[in-house]
Amino acid sequence: MSVEFRVNPDRYRHWRVTFDGPVATVTMDTDEHGGLVPGYELKLNSYDLGVDIELYDITQRLRFEHPEVKAVVLTSGKDKVFSAGANIRMLAASPHHDKVNFCKFTNETRNGIEDATANSGQTWIAALNGTASGGGYELALACEHIMLVDDRSSAVSLPELPLLGVLPGTGGLTRVVDKRHVRRDLADYFSTRPEGVTGRKAAAWRLVDEVVPRTAWDQTVTARARERAAASRRPADAEGIKLTKLAKQRNADAIRYRFVAASLDPARGVAEITIQGPPDDPPENGIRAQGDQFWTLAMTRELDDLILDLRTNEPELGTWVLRTKGDAEKVLAHDRLLDDNAQDWLASEITGYLKRTLKRLDVTSRSLIALIEPGSCFAGSLLELALAADRSYHLAGTRDADETQEPATITIAAMNLGPLPMANGLTRMQTRFLGDDKQLSEAEQNQGEPLEAERAEHLGLVTFAPDDIDWDDEVRIAIEERSSFSPDALSGLEANYRFAGPETLETKIFGRLSAWQNWIFTRPNASGPDGALRKFGTGQRADFDKKRV
Amino acid sequence: MSVEFRVNPDRYRHWRVTFDGPVATVTMDTDEHGGLVPGYELKLNSYDLGVDIELYDITQRLRFEHPEVKAVVLTSGKDKVFSAGANIRMLAASPHHDKVNFCKFTNETRNGIEDATANSGQTWIAALNGTASGGGYELALACEHIMLVDDRSSAVSLPELPLLGVLPGTGGLTRVVDKRHVRRDLADYFSTRPEGVTGRKAAAWRLVDEVVPRTAWDQTVTARARERAAASRRPADAEGIKLTKLAKQRNADAIRYRFVAASLDPARGVAEITIQGPPDDPPENGIRAQGDQFWTLAMTRELDDLILDLRTNEPELGTWVLRTKGDAEKVLAHDRLLDDNAQDWLASEITGYLKRTLKRLDVTSRSLIALIEPGSCFAGSLLELALAADRSYHLAGTRDADETQEPATITIAAMNLGPLPMANGLTRMQTRFLGDDKQLSEAEQNQGEPLEAERAEHLGLVTFAPDDIDWDDEVRIAIEERSSFSPDALSGLEANYRFAGPETLETKIFGRLSAWQNWIFTRPNASGPDGALRKFGTGQRADFDKKRV
Repeated sequence: MSVEFRVNPDRYRHWRVTFDGPVATVTMDTDEHGGLVPGYELKLNSYDLGVDIELYDITQRLRFEHPEVKAVVLTSGKDKVFSAGANIRMLAASPHHDKVNFCKFTNETRNGIEDATANSGQTWIAALNGTASGGGYELALACEHIMLVDDRSSAVSLPELPLLGVLPGTGGLTRVVDKRHVRRDLADYFSTRPEGVTGRKAAAWRLVDEVVPRTAWDQTVTARARERAAASRRPADAEGIKLTKLAKQRNADAIRYRFVAASLDPARGVAEITIQGPPDDPPENGIRAQGDQFWTLAMTRELDDLILDLRTNEPELGTWVLRTKGDAEKVLAHDRLLDDNAQDWLASEITGYLKRTLKRLDVTSRSLIALIEPGSCFAGSLLELALAADRSYHLAGTRDADETQEPATITIAAMNLGPLPMANGLTRMQTRFLGDDKQLSEAEQNQGEPLEAERAEHLGLVTFAPDDIDWDDEVRIAIEERSSFSPDALSGLEANYRFAGPETLETKIFGRLSAWQNWIFTRPNASGPDGALRKFGTGQRADFDKKRV
Repeated sequence: MSVEFRVNPDRYRHWRVTFDGPVATVTMDTDEHGGLVPGYELKLNSYDLGVDIELYDITQRLRFEHPEVKAVVLTSGKDKVFSAGANIRMLAASPHHDKVNFCKFTNETRNGIEDATANSGQTWIAALNGTASGGGYELALACEHIMLVDDRSSAVSLPELPLLGVLPGTGGLTRVVDKRHVRRDLADYFSTRPEGVTGRKAAAWRLVDEVVPRTAWDQTVTARARERAAASRRPADAEGIKLTKLAKQRNADAIRYRFVAASLDPARGVAEITIQGPPDDPPENGIRAQGDQFWTLAMTRELDDLILDLRTNEPELGTWVLRTKGDAEKVLAHDRLLDDNAQDWLASEITGYLKRTLKRLDVTSRSLIALIEPGSCFAGSLLELALAADRSYHLAGTRDADETQEPATITIAAMNLGPLPMANGLTRMQTRFLGDDKQLSEAEQNQGEPLEAERAEHLGLVTFAPDDIDWDDEVRIAIEERSSFSPDALSGLEANYRFAGPETLETKIFGRLSAWQNWIFTRPNASGPDGALRKFGTGQRADFDKKRV
């Protein structure tokens, strides 16, 4: 069964979204019987991938469809419980790659919540009207402000270590010390208490921002949301655009959208992805008129869905080959329109969404190889695909000495110099030329110039520039070879090479925390027949190999 | 068999050290039959833990016994090969915890080489007179300057991924992009070529600093070493001190040195470590007169050896309880003497060694619990032990209402405010109070004051301050509970909480790279019966599970 990431708000099973002027309230109320696969019940607002897919959809619609929303209250529809976190039986039954992929997606959604607060003027507030444990508390940690009801029983907790023998793997450990600045020894103690911490102690230790008695709960939550909304820079009376259902055809061999397509080749372990540039010049009457059909937004939505689909449903396609096709000038014209309207909320949302989607590509554990061939349009925003790749090949000259063809070029533009930073806070060009400001500025000086292969290679913008004679063999060998390597070692290699330079909360979560969690998930102490994940709920204790590693 | 870290230069089996004025030459020439355990031959200058123990000893003696040495040339005594890296058969046969522990120690030694260049005026130069592959090249990467002989065959390479299905796990990936600024796509290509890169291409890609023809090799190496030596700030005619053999008694129950002792309790999974403060005031005639018997140096050497012994030989002792005993005033007097002589090479070496040893404690995958009791001396340098711990318990008042006892105190001093930074570049106090400058400065203002438990707890310097009535139960439960948790999850938790704040090359190596390597080591694709590590050298290909995670 293939997991579907396109969801319709009319059919949410686990969430309610209500609106009151500038404040949206997102209420988690999981349907116990709505698990994505059989075998577990989503009790106590525990969640699985399906619950999180709906949450991701909510975050996107709030941004695009609701410019009027300036504060988002995240709360629970259950009595006395906010959320028990990721469903344990689901985790225990999942194969390793599903566990890791699930954690990655939930991490991305939580990073998106922080990004909405930081960059969209939509501040998320966690209104914990009951206990938030494990992933439930980690979800709250992604919010800017955490309120906990003070009723002697509602607690925040990270019980993963004592109860399950794994880590809070959705950014919890990093956010506790690096974002909320909980003292490390108190954090250590907190993370060993299955029952967590309640009331004033939770506030004193900075695990939450405030505790509020139940009698004053509703009015205080409303007041906080209104305060945050009042501080937002989001426009007063803009109108949202509708995110319509993405048209998509999918079978075992191919996935097709309007601008993005992938052919799937399990025998070679390869997905060949092609992104079409804009068919037309950007609309003279602005972006809004085209709504979600504006090329950059439509293409980004398709690419986003494709990444999620391939990651989740095609784990054995270990190499993604990235191509573009179309008119570079039209790509650059769309980029310019976004850049010229950078102060407009909608243009800003579109660029921000492209930024997040490219970040999703960066943390995807697949080898990325960009092929720059005649007819391609690796310019500006689409050049980021080649810069995100582990390697790029740029054909020197034309195919078969065909003089009717133009040689392939790449073009640096403003989009490559700031608006689309990676998780490390640098642009992909800055990361590429880390520690070499001279080469960076030399490359940047070629902004706007269509660069043919030799020049692009000389400037360090592409990896190799074979000519027609060598192209087929060189590219074929690179792809075949990639499929022959250990998939695990490739994931580790790429995770280390893609994020040179400064570290941020995000790179720590994806680089360090996730790697530890991956390791712990594979260990018999967690996932073996006598491991803690398997023994949870059986009344039996896990049987640990006591060796410290 | 218990691994011994105390070695005698007269009995090195794998290295030669020669001296020529300000230049020392360290020549790797492994004894094929000198492996630490049977089952493999150390061909082609491949190494195991035993080889690296000797290298670590060399780095320490160069610092303390040879103030005249200002540049260190690292080269090979074998023909056409510098080093083939970690011995594969040794790795393949090692249990997981041994592999990880081996990588950690080799990482620490390489970090020490960088530290010698940065802080001791001893610049390490890698003179690659033959191919350096895998860990061999990673050893070179720790040097400040890498020279490669240009003979059409000598290469540098990281063949781990294509040949073994694991990562270059000794800092290689991090140093390639973050230290040497090799472009990430070239680094990717390089790390997939088993044969590596030779000659001018290696220099153009920044994998080495220069390539030198064999005819000019000796004179160029000598010239580079002399240039680096001339730029050193190390004193002209100082005299070294001898590092004499550390007196140590060890049996199954206890390890004892002069100032440091540990009792081993396998049933509880605990090592109880006690560090004695100085028996006397520091010598009036300075540090040199006492040589390696100067308390700070002697205690640090003992602690260093104990950490390495317990890590390697006692993997099931998962909790280390840290105590001190003695006169806080005398600890502070020794600290002051070091501080007053901070410009002196020997005082600076001693403080630097203590810094590195405390860093070793920080990256040790054991739970650290400090107990601050009457008669202890957690002051200045020794207070760092409590600040390094995951938790500290400070007894409020005295035992059994004994009025002859003084309540335990801790004392902040200059040593806590700069000279002993963690791997993240911050002091342990700065890391503790990350993001809370007010609490940091409030704590710092108490410098020099002996602080009793309530005050220390209020200032956030200790975790808990139980009184005599609660002490035994609270401490016992904390230790027992720790032993009941998953050892793997504890390692992950501690690795994430101990290093909040900024990231450096070192924290990336220990936090991110090591976590990925740990994961990859456990995977069937590497260590399973059909994994790449097991199949290496058999002529058969590994059989990979192709799912990307």
